[in-house]
Amino acid sequence: MNNMEPQKIVCLFSGGADSATLITYYKKAGYDVYALGVNYGQKHNKELIFASNFCSISNIKYKIIDLTSLKELLSASVLTSDKPVPEEHYTHENQKQTVVPNRNMILLSIATGYAVTIGAKYIAFAAHANDFAIYPDCRPSFVNAFGEALTHALFEESKINVIAPFVHMTKGEIIKLGTELGVPYENTWSCYNGRDKACGKCGTCQERLEAFAFAGIKDPLKYE
Amino acid sequence: MNNMEPQKIVCLFSGGADSATLITYYKKAGYDVYALGVNYGQKHNKELIFASNFCSISNIKYKIIDLTSLKELLSASVLTSDKPVPEEHYTHENQKQTVVPNRNMILLSIATGYAVTIGAKYIAFAAHANDFAIYPDCRPSFVNAFGEALTHALFEESKINVIAPFVHMTKGEIIKLGTELGVPYENTWSCYNGRDKACGKCGTCQERLEAFAFAGIKDPLKYE
Repeated sequence: MNNMEPQKIVCLFSGGADSATLITYYKKAGYDVYALGVNYGQKHNKELIFASNFCSISNIKYKIIDLTSLKELLSASVLTSDKPVPEEHYTHENQKQTVVPNRNMILLSIATGYAVTIGAKYIAFAAHANDFAIYPDCRPSFVNAFGEALTHALFEESKINVIAPFVHMTKGEIIKLGTELGVPYENTWSCYNGRDKACGKCGTCQERLEAFAFAGIKDPLKYE
Repeated sequence: MNNMEPQKIVCLFSGGADSATLITYYKKAGYDVYALGVNYGQKHNKELIFASNFCSISNIKYKIIDLTSLKELLSASVLTSDKPVPEEHYTHENQKQTVVPNRNMILLSIATGYAVTIGAKYIAFAAHANDFAIYPDCRPSFVNAFGEALTHALFEESKINVIAPFVHMTKGEIIKLGTELGVPYENTWSCYNGRDKACGKCGTCQERLEAFAFAGIKDPLKYE
């Protein structure tokens, strides 16, 4: 009889396709997954409802932390301000506009505190190769530097490892992997506009549709 | 005529004696200081009222961010749980109990996002030599590793420097410096218990009283 408890892992989970693949990946690998969602005052907080549904369907523990009070501090980003979301394909300039300044470091720092509290040794997030072309905090060099900073931040007995297993994969490759794992993508949400159906026009919708096309799969989500 | 605008700096400000010295230090040095307080569900949120008063008296901009939703995630700490605060001098073991897991990294990450938003190039916090004996995230090695992680986290155009100017000073030396700068210490709060007067017994009260004694100054705060 095997009495070993499964390894705990805290995963950042936005409710989108990439992080849904991440938590399913660790769940199927036998980890005890703690999904962590964040309400940071984003327009598309519809993703939080999808995230919650996704976790109950997948039998994964889920917590939302409320960082809406950061909205004013981080108002440089169009996601948290009243500026419209650009409805066009990502370009270097318009994708930069969608950045909440230092978002990954803020969320990973909180995920680390949570991991210490519950006795997990791992935190993970779904950074991937499409993102790291533009966002510095999705690159392997950031993941390494953040991990190094953690070794200096914590007591010896609570060492935490930060993992980004998709960092060298494209979004298309992630969707392909997720389809093999049986990720129920109809319960994920990517669109930066929070309307009834996904807009299909904003950068993240276009990127998602391209990723499904690459994987040769029809996106089960409803579009306008 | 000098048209140069003063350098902006974001300073973590708890309302305690060390960070009050920090913001006064930069204010007197001609910086445009943005003090950042955090309500993370601590018992001693009385410090936030002192912090707000301190900043209006000192004519320093002040914002509080509400991280109370982190309370449940970070409940390993006695400061955010229902466990009593130890009323005795700091020991290695009881001081460890007062740690909010990964607190400095969480707060500095948020301070960084704020700095990017307002166009500041510096963030600072009041880590000092008494703390770094026990808390890893108050040590020079952490400050350096965090600074290095920041260089990987942000876009080229928003490089942020993290500074801990008191990292090699004792708390007594900070109080001595602050007295020379005219810091109004009667408007600061350190006690981990949030009663009418400071308890004088908890680790942080005892440390504060010892620091004033070292500096040869009477602490103007009222004690039980």
